[in-house]
Amino acid sequence: MGVVATRRELLRSAAGLGLAGMIPALAGCSEAKAAQPPNILFILADDLGYADLSCYGRRDYVTPHLDTLASQGVRLTQGYANSCVCSSTRIGLVTGRYQQRLVVGLEEPITTPKPTDMLPAGHPTIASLLKAQGYRTALIGKWHIGGAPAAAPTNYGYDHFYGYTGGGTSYYPLSAANPMPDDLISNGSPVAWNGYLTDVLADEAVRWITGGWGPFFLSMHFNAPHAPWTAPGDMAGAALWTDALDRNRGNLDAFAKIVVNLDQNIGKILATLDALHLANDTIVVFTSDNGGERFSEMWPFTGVKGELLEGGLRVPLILRWPGKIAPATTSPQVMVSMDFLPTLLAAAGGAPDPAFPSDGENLLPVLTGASAPHPRKLFWRHKAGDQAAVRDGDWKYLRLGGKEHLFDLAADARERADRSADEPARFAQLRDAWTAWNAGMLPYSAANFTYDVTQVDADRY
Amino acid sequence: MGVVATRRELLRSAAGLGLAGMIPALAGCSEAKAAQPPNILFILADDLGYADLSCYGRRDYVTPHLDTLASQGVRLTQGYANSCVCSSTRIGLVTGRYQQRLVVGLEEPITTPKPTDMLPAGHPTIASLLKAQGYRTALIGKWHIGGAPAAAPTNYGYDHFYGYTGGGTSYYPLSAANPMPDDLISNGSPVAWNGYLTDVLADEAVRWITGGWGPFFLSMHFNAPHAPWTAPGDMAGAALWTDALDRNRGNLDAFAKIVVNLDQNIGKILATLDALHLANDTIVVFTSDNGGERFSEMWPFTGVKGELLEGGLRVPLILRWPGKIAPATTSPQVMVSMDFLPTLLAAAGGAPDPAFPSDGENLLPVLTGASAPHPRKLFWRHKAGDQAAVRDGDWKYLRLGGKEHLFDLAADARERADRSADEPARFAQLRDAWTAWNAGMLPYSAANFTYDVTQVDADRY
Repeated sequence: MGVVATRRELLRSAAGLGLAGMIPALAGCSEAKAAQPPNILFILADDLGYADLSCYGRRDYVTPHLDTLASQGVRLTQGYANSCVCSSTRIGLVTGRYQQRLVVGLEEPITTPKPTDMLPAGHPTIASLLKAQGYRTALIGKWHIGGAPAAAPTNYGYDHFYGYTGGGTSYYPLSAANPMPDDLISNGSPVAWNGYLTDVLADEAVRWITGGWGPFFLSMHFNAPHAPWTAPGDMAGAALWTDALDRNRGNLDAFAKIVVNLDQNIGKILATLDALHLANDTIVVFTSDNGGERFSEMWPFTGVKGELLEGGLRVPLILRWPGKIAPATTSPQVMVSMDFLPTLLAAAGGAPDPAFPSDGENLLPVLTGASAPHPRKLFWRHKAGDQAAVRDGDWKYLRLGGKEHLFDLAADARERADRSADEPARFAQLRDAWTAWNAGMLPYSAANFTYDVTQVDADRY
Repeated sequence: MGVVATRRELLRSAAGLGLAGMIPALAGCSEAKAAQPPNILFILADDLGYADLSCYGRRDYVTPHLDTLASQGVRLTQGYANSCVCSSTRIGLVTGRYQQRLVVGLEEPITTPKPTDMLPAGHPTIASLLKAQGYRTALIGKWHIGGAPAAAPTNYGYDHFYGYTGGGTSYYPLSAANPMPDDLISNGSPVAWNGYLTDVLADEAVRWITGGWGPFFLSMHFNAPHAPWTAPGDMAGAALWTDALDRNRGNLDAFAKIVVNLDQNIGKILATLDALHLANDTIVVFTSDNGGERFSEMWPFTGVKGELLEGGLRVPLILRWPGKIAPATTSPQVMVSMDFLPTLLAAAGGAPDPAFPSDGENLLPVLTGASAPHPRKLFWRHKAGDQAAVRDGDWKYLRLGGKEHLFDLAADARERADRSADEPARFAQLRDAWTAWNAGMLPYSAANFTYDVTQVDADRY
């Protein structure tokens, strides 16, 4: 039987990766190709800044696996997150809509989950919609859209969940006395884990990809390079962190090792696709949930996580789909987290739920070269610092720290030259557009988490 | 006669540079070598940030002439300015002492010069001390230590002054109606000038070097890349600026062209040294007066001009002295603006005036490899934001925006991990050291210029 022969062949390849004994997926079998939609491997880094990969400019380390991925697909220079912090981007990502349409989406981020900090039961998600298309689905790593069990990913279309529901976790298991989160769960059960978290999550991804059948959607949401900045091998250092918000730890050297290790682990997952002959039938996406934190590089942008300046919003965004997306290309197409739902559903032959139309856009025609890049109109909001932003074409309105600005991003990506006095009509138009958009969203309540954006780092005073 | 033959030879070389007809310097003649101290070409950029040269990391343009200079000498990774703004650094530079010892040194920077905004008559300077050593001396470009004629450079040991006394000037001459400064003076007389300022200043340097005899000290203080950000060739754009503090103009593209042109002009001056066979007998220094402004890159540092974070203080610092300083080396030696006076005087066979001992240090032994790099203890102060800083070895105390920090620069060059709670004794020791140093300096008066450091750019709120 052809299928058996292929399975044997796959097992031979898998042996080289230490995968022998696992049941390989057969998605790459030539018999199934015509009928089967592409697998989707969606990789989300946590707090990785725009210039934190060497293919985006970082100089103090290299990320060869992600650079190679970019060379095999398209690298977007205008990729955006739905928010400048984690939870709210992730809600925009999984719903394909502005997160401000949902009560849970007003938490920036979710701190101690309240009963309202969850997606409404039955709310369609990228996972439930792909599942309806026949996909097996999983989320490995960070959820941060509510606590388990009530708001576990498995309630929202993910067949499998292995990871953590909070905002961050230790890179090594800690002693019981350490208050820092370090608990992993697998489909509702606690996981006894050892080793470095990024390795552990990637190993689980390899297991899950290898151990199933049919087209898959894997949301691989790494912890790295979120705080605590514990480098691989530094178990003693991990124990020093008792709160991921510690402001007295971390440095560029640890950050570099965390990102290099992340890149290696992504290389491991991509090698699994190769070994299973799935690479040609798999869309791979790599992006980040918001702009970088204090050890990130955002050049040429200013601003960091927590700010609606480009440095807080602009993220690496790489897509590979052999035979559909041209290799070694860069694209100026503006794309944002909530575009993935309509875009990936389109690739799977589906569409968003008409009752929950996406605020994003199916950009597959642009990514595959069928149509040209085009301007977008996108809105952002952030409670901390009373921030507001709209991007319309190349122009951006920004309100931050009590001041309003108008920037021409095409000429001034660093957002330094405030053009509001020179362009009063455009300024008013963009501000009005934001006000109108905001009126259609849920308002913040006093209970929504916030913080003082000026009290974070020495250069924020 | 050997001298005449050499002069003819020099004129032949100079012809290729368009210098024919000028009187060449004879400093490079072999007859004079043994007796003559080295020429000193001291080049100061204005507001160039730490990573603004390609040899320091800048990626969106290249600076081949300065990169080559670095490859022929030593590139310091821990070069500092005496201040995070212009005038005060320049006072530290020319006096070789903490600028806070002088009333004029309390202006950060000098805005509209007051009668007290000048060095005391007869105060020794790097120029007057070198002049006493037999040097012909000049300052071309920016002075900014007081207005002419009372406080002109020619009152302080500079034989020749061609440039401007204020903080910045237009890159092109402007119409009389434009309030932006664009006046140049030469030894007290107005200069009618045309063309791009950086070209004009470099041409004057070539003229002056070529047109004299004996060892020279040239302080070549460029305007570039200070605001207004007018690219070469953009005469129309120059006219749009009416105030160098305009916050609605400038962009990365213009900045890149300004720095590339600066590099080319420095190449032109260095080629003149080559053509006149002076390169082997000339110490060339390149540095900046403070950290970078809004279009500068300061990676891996945070902070900008106006802040005592490393990004506001750390500057490119390159020294070339053929046969004395090893080529293609980098050095971690901490060196600061006020070190140039004792260091360059030592190279010239002189020493500071004993009545005005330098707060800096002769670092020639380190630069020439005779002794190893060693730790330093240096202090900074800035009125805006009530800033204070001391660096002692690798540790730094920083007070900024009402908050105090302790940073370990060896581990954390970005100044993100505040170690004050972990290292209370070290924190107290450094703060006390700063307080003791400050007690020996002049206090600010209410009349000293200041500004709100938080009201500058969008990411400073």
